[in-house]
Amino acid sequence: MNDKTVLDRASGLKKVFIDIRSNKIFELFVITVIVISALKVGIGTYPLGPNLTVGLKALDYAVTIFFLVELLIRLAAEPNLKRFFSKGWNVFDFVIVTASLIPIDESEMALLGRLLRIFRVLRLVSMIPELQVLLNALLQAIPRMGYVTLLMFIIFYIYGAAGSIFFAEINPTLWGNISIAMLTLFRVATFEDWTDVMYETMEVYPLSWMFYLSFIFLVAFIFLNMMIGIVIQTLQSEHEKLEGNPDAHAPEMIASENPITAPSIDARLARIEARLETLSGALLPNAKREGA
Amino acid sequence: MNDKTVLDRASGLKKVFIDIRSNKIFELFVITVIVISALKVGIGTYPLGPNLTVGLKALDYAVTIFFLVELLIRLAAEPNLKRFFSKGWNVFDFVIVTASLIPIDESEMALLGRLLRIFRVLRLVSMIPELQVLLNALLQAIPRMGYVTLLMFIIFYIYGAAGSIFFAEINPTLWGNISIAMLTLFRVATFEDWTDVMYETMEVYPLSWMFYLSFIFLVAFIFLNMMIGIVIQTLQSEHEKLEGNPDAHAPEMIASENPITAPSIDARLARIEARLETLSGALLPNAKREGA
Amino acid sequence: MNDKTVLDRASGLKKVFIDIRSNKIFELFVITVIVISALKVGIGTYPLGPNLTVGLKALDYAVTIFFLVELLIRLAAEPNLKRFFSKGWNVFDFVIVTASLIPIDESEMALLGRLLRIFRVLRLVSMIPELQVLLNALLQAIPRMGYVTLLMFIIFYIYGAAGSIFFAEINPTLWGNISIAMLTLFRVATFEDWTDVMYETMEVYPLSWMFYLSFIFLVAFIFLNMMIGIVIQTLQSEHEKLEGNPDAHAPEMIASENPITAPSIDARLARIEARLETLSGALLPNAKREGA
Amino acid sequence: MNDKTVLDRASGLKKVFIDIRSNKIFELFVITVIVISALKVGIGTYPLGPNLTVGLKALDYAVTIFFLVELLIRLAAEPNLKRFFSKGWNVFDFVIVTASLIPIDESEMALLGRLLRIFRVLRLVSMIPELQVLLNALLQAIPRMGYVTLLMFIIFYIYGAAGSIFFAEINPTLWGNISIAMLTLFRVATFEDWTDVMYETMEVYPLSWMFYLSFIFLVAFIFLNMMIGIVIQTLQSEHEKLEGNPDAHAPEMIASENPITAPSIDARLARIEARLETLSGALLPNAKREGA
Repeated sequence: MNDKTVLDRASGLKKVFIDIRSNKIFELFVITVIVISALKVGIGTYPLGPNLTVGLKALDYAVTIFFLVELLIRLAAEPNLKRFFSKGWNVFDFVIVTASLIPIDESEMALLGRLLRIFRVLRLVSMIPELQVLLNALLQAIPRMGYVTLLMFIIFYIYGAAGSIFFAEINPTLWGNISIAMLTLFRVATFEDWTDVMYETMEVYPLSWMFYLSFIFLVAFIFLNMMIGIVIQTLQSEHEKLEGNPDAHAPEMIASENPITAPSIDARLARIEARLETLSGALLPNAKREGA
Repeated sequence: MNDKTVLDRASGLKKVFIDIRSNKIFELFVITVIVISALKVGIGTYPLGPNLTVGLKALDYAVTIFFLVELLIRLAAEPNLKRFFSKGWNVFDFVIVTASLIPIDESEMALLGRLLRIFRVLRLVSMIPELQVLLNALLQAIPRMGYVTLLMFIIFYIYGAAGSIFFAEINPTLWGNISIAMLTLFRVATFEDWTDVMYETMEVYPLSWMFYLSFIFLVAFIFLNMMIGIVIQTLQSEHEKLEGNPDAHAPEMIASENPITAPSIDARLARIEARLETLSGALLPNAKREGA
Repeated sequence: MNDKTVLDRASGLKKVFIDIRSNKIFELFVITVIVISALKVGIGTYPLGPNLTVGLKALDYAVTIFFLVELLIRLAAEPNLKRFFSKGWNVFDFVIVTASLIPIDESEMALLGRLLRIFRVLRLVSMIPELQVLLNALLQAIPRMGYVTLLMFIIFYIYGAAGSIFFAEINPTLWGNISIAMLTLFRVATFEDWTDVMYETMEVYPLSWMFYLSFIFLVAFIFLNMMIGIVIQTLQSEHEKLEGNPDAHAPEMIASENPITAPSIDARLARIEARLETLSGALLPNAKREGA
Repeated sequence: MNDKTVLDRASGLKKVFIDIRSNKIFELFVITVIVISALKVGIGTYPLGPNLTVGLKALDYAVTIFFLVELLIRLAAEPNLKRFFSKGWNVFDFVIVTASLIPIDESEMALLGRLLRIFRVLRLVSMIPELQVLLNALLQAIPRMGYVTLLMFIIFYIYGAAGSIFFAEINPTLWGNISIAMLTLFRVATFEDWTDVMYETMEVYPLSWMFYLSFIFLVAFIFLNMMIGIVIQTLQSEHEKLEGNPDAHAPEMIASENPITAPSIDARLARIEARLETLSGALLPNAKREGA
């Protein structure tokens, strides 16, 4: 009897936790706490008096504990742990919340602890479904760019290698090795003071403007084509989703209408002809030559 | 009798005001005055002799009074005030015109008064319907960007917080607190001397280029996706408006053509068959096995 | 008789001119001369020895005379002058060629003369039809932007006036009057060292970053919407031209196919039925009730 | 008998080579070697100890020999040399591999040899079909831009000539001759410190801002229109490919369905009519007037 009461109580508690989790007001409260936590991080970057610093520390403890409680409620409301951890955002929440529990007073870990508190702002994305949808859409757009990114990287690599071979002695801070050269090339690709970089090398190699212009044209060209490619791909998939259905329907409808109608008409006509032939043959044996 | 005359006169006056308001020449005249007022503001930014300054002041008075008269005419032409103030542009006109009446000779208010005179240029938008349509279209495009803007803000906030934590000591004027850091990040997002900002922090944190590149890629990626999203959304809504109708028509036309034709042919063939059957059955009782 | 011969000769000459004008080889030759004239202009910007300078001068005379001859041929080939001057490009050619005949040795006019020789490069556009088509397409795209450009100008004007009122004392070379301020704003709109402009005014007005950011967002927003608007407008007009026709054709074809087929089948079936009725009626007067 | 064995052996070897060439593992191995070769080039730009330098040299020999062997296998697997060299990528591979065999110890050729090793990275494109498809798509996009590029070049040429005529004395390093001026204009087109260029010339010609602004607007306008043109062209060709087919299919299907069905139905009805006519004619000579 006692066991049963415990079980009842447990399942009662679970129901309570599920109710809390799906409560709109609770959700809003969690979002508010995340926003407060974000504001706290922002305020923390300003110089503050000792009182405010203590207040912010207390607020940080409160937020940390609230996040822990909220996580425990969501864990308790979940039927099994596997399903809970199968969602990426839950794992993210779990790591952020548990890592926040580690004390960060040692100067070593202080920066990491502050970074962690910044990442708590990302919990907003895990709480607002619209942002999750947006982020998923963005993540889905990445593979489309796979080979274009590879091609872009090959071009950066080739120009970077060539740049560091030819220009390393002119300006080692810009062209010292291939990774610095690729960073300089990215700078050139963003048009950031790229002429300063060019004029410097043009003093030694007067034709080096061809290096920069060919690079800029190549990168701009591939970038534009990638963009256009994405627009068209997206348009097509949208088309298929939205317009495709009626379009696919229309011919199918016509096709399904005609094949059914036409054979039935054909079959009927065939029967009519056969019957008429029989009729004619029977009635007018001598009319056959005329009918043929 | 006197009352009626007053009423008649009042309604006669109202009609006059309505006539004036909807008069094309009056509208053109108002636009001309707005343009003159705008030119006056522009000329006022140049150093002028005392004569011209006095002339401009007189012109300002004239424009202010004309705007007041025009507003009163439009108010008088309107059947009730509620409807007049329900239009945002009317409220805007009212505020601008009445605020212009406040004398601005005190040095304190002088700047505000000059600002107000600048905003009178915006009255052009309230007078030219095409500009109103354009502005409404622009305003309608804002909500589409709601969650993308939120996501963008979260990214700026996170990078701003991280930047001010790590780089505040390197350059306080760029990374001193989170709001300055976010302004610096906006500068990086516009590629404005962003390498200077990066090279400075790379001297302390050699890997900080990852901070900048990841930020640039994220922002560029979200921005591109937002743009593509808007293009596609706009295309779809245009499609639905323009192409959707004929498309929906075409299959319907075909569908409505065939079902009518096909059944009628079928029905006729059925009647022919029935008749032939009767014929054959009557004429050739022994031919029935052949026909079947 | 003499008159007639003159007339014959004249019309013979006219025919010769028309033949020359429409001759592909002549056209190619004209294009070659234009390219040579363009190269001459380019070479003229390099420091040259006295021999080359004399040679270029001779070449310039030759090109000028050739252009005059070519213009006279085209004038002579044209039936009437009105039609010749109704085409913008012909007027452009006429002005460029006749203005080239004015001697340019005086130092005053030398620059203008050289400018004129540069504009002769534009004759390429008047000779290559593909470039004319392209340019016409570009010109046709301008009116679409009419009101957007007006709105953009209003925004530049308002921000320029506000900027010159508030910032003129901080930096007169950037904000001295409204036209300088609008040029500075255009610089800000191209992100060219805009932070330098901003940091300078932020020292006096710490909130002036709002001025710049709101301006950048407004301009970028209107620019993006204009671009998207153009894309959609162009797509629609292309759609109507290219897809509209086949789309409109397809259902028409189907519609025209069916109405022809269906009535013919219907008519034939009607005749068959009528005939069968007659047959049945004649052969089996008592079967009528069965057939009905 | 001996000859035949040799022939058998040769054709056996050929089959072995073909098997090797089309082996997926072999392909992956070749790609790995190319990546190693690319990494070697990258590592070579860093300062290295003598041991590593020797190691890299040995690696270079190994890669060069491997590429030679791989090329020989592909040559041996090909039925005839003409077909092998008809593919551009094979020619590229052949040139890169054979040129790598030339010793590069002389300081003269050292740079060229290193450049050659960089270009070996491009062999990735010849090995990965997806990258080839991408590159071909990019190459196919070039001709579309033909006349726009010509128009752009004409504009750069005209502005370059005008710039070098007017501004050459102000700043010879920016406007010295037409090619330097065109490079400066490209810099202006990328908004790279373009105001510095403008402010300098505005001191001599205060109206020269019109030169820069008109140039920027022209280039931006043509560039935008080119982009939009490409988007629309690509969309159309994609439409024709993807949507066109079902569209083209649908009417074709209907058309092919109908013409076949309709004539067959028509023919059948014609035969039925003919037969009925014969029947009626034979049975009811006096019923003809009724049937007509």
